[in-house]
Amino acid sequence: MTHWIRCLYERAELFGVLEGDQITVFSGNMFDDPQPTDRTLRLDEVIILPPTRPTKMIGLWNNFHAAAEKNNWAIPEQPLYFIKPPSCFLATGEVIRRPASYQGRVVYEGELGVVIGRSCSGVTEEQAGDFIFGYTCVNDVTALQLINEDPAFPQWTRAKSFDTFGPFGPTVGTGLDPSELAVKTLLNGRERQNYPVTDMIFSPEVLVSRISHDMNLCPGDVIACGTSLGVLPMKPGSTVEVVIDGIGTLQNSVE
Amino acid sequence: MTHWIRCLYERAELFGVLEGDQITVFSGNMFDDPQPTDRTLRLDEVIILPPTRPTKMIGLWNNFHAAAEKNNWAIPEQPLYFIKPPSCFLATGEVIRRPASYQGRVVYEGELGVVIGRSCSGVTEEQAGDFIFGYTCVNDVTALQLINEDPAFPQWTRAKSFDTFGPFGPTVGTGLDPSELAVKTLLNGRERQNYPVTDMIFSPEVLVSRISHDMNLCPGDVIACGTSLGVLPMKPGSTVEVVIDGIGTLQNSVE
Repeated sequence: MTHWIRCLYERAELFGVLEGDQITVFSGNMFDDPQPTDRTLRLDEVIILPPTRPTKMIGLWNNFHAAAEKNNWAIPEQPLYFIKPPSCFLATGEVIRRPASYQGRVVYEGELGVVIGRSCSGVTEEQAGDFIFGYTCVNDVTALQLINEDPAFPQWTRAKSFDTFGPFGPTVGTGLDPSELAVKTLLNGRERQNYPVTDMIFSPEVLVSRISHDMNLCPGDVIACGTSLGVLPMKPGSTVEVVIDGIGTLQNSVE
Repeated sequence: MTHWIRCLYERAELFGVLEGDQITVFSGNMFDDPQPTDRTLRLDEVIILPPTRPTKMIGLWNNFHAAAEKNNWAIPEQPLYFIKPPSCFLATGEVIRRPASYQGRVVYEGELGVVIGRSCSGVTEEQAGDFIFGYTCVNDVTALQLINEDPAFPQWTRAKSFDTFGPFGPTVGTGLDPSELAVKTLLNGRERQNYPVTDMIFSPEVLVSRISHDMNLCPGDVIACGTSLGVLPMKPGSTVEVVIDGIGTLQNSVE
């Protein structure tokens, strides 16, 4: 199991492998034969960045049986998704900010993120694993009451795309079996979500296959697999942590 | 008036200014003090690329009075939008491909594209013009019947994001007054759309201001301002042209 991380050190953007509190700096391309260097840095002397630079984050709606059952949502025939743009991405430790234009509830959604490693288009479910680089934690922050504010047009994109609404990280874990993972979300230290990845309607491999038939997926792109039960509003001053054992803790405060 | 273009020549990606059928190659950054070089190329010896590399394209729904009136849509209080990802962008001359998974109608939507020139966040309507680099033609290709295929979740993103569904170009025109522009769309040579930009509900400046309060807009990002009357399906073998006098003709065939 390897934990890839990106960081800033003396204004230079670096990437490498995190072990304990030490980063081994790599050179080249994270997704294409990266090479270790002799250089190491301590985690506390860098600024952590989001672990990849996605061209897009694809977010799923209604992808967990438990949530579908509780909300009386039909099991979808296709993955149902929206896109979060690069402008909303946020690293662990950074601050989620409420938009001034919106007074309603802002909720967390703790999610597993699938990180693409190789450009892929139209791949089968059997091939999909070869295009998955690893997994990360995502907080799919949502301005919940905005979605249905206009009766004619559900504003999924806008509700999900405000600046700072796309935290992911802290690392990309590779060599993991996603079927063994659970997603936990803690609000102010109290566990509010804890659900197994195996409850997904469309598994990571199925998502990569289906979505790659719609659009080319690029190295670093993230598919946020949707959330399950336990979504709650985050008040100003809150701290929210999305924890996936084997990946790490994505921690953000809310202003 | 200046027409900026990006192109491939002998596998090198270049940008410059198009005059007639000649490109003057520039060096540096299109958006930050680009410098002319002595080099010129003929338009017929290059491959035209989309004129910028947007991190996102924001597409408007219901932004023209004529279309709202005909369809009995209420005038929205806020811009209503979705995002088209970089994977769908297409240059003039390239081929729009129907996704194999979808058998319904694929329609063109001829639109004015606002091209951002400077990073902007929370700008006023009065400031917005300073952040607009220029204007381009957009074909907001849409798998129309997919939008409401799932009764629980309108698939705006998916219907708009298939590979090849984001043609824009051929150039970015600067020094234009958008209020003097008209958007025309020709299907197989026959004019099917012809509407004035002044019929917009939210003008380019208002769109840049409002959307920049939601999310940071980056140099090269495109806001596709929505379409008006005259949207029609494109059958395989069709040719579609979006024409804005003062910018140029965005021409694509359909497979």
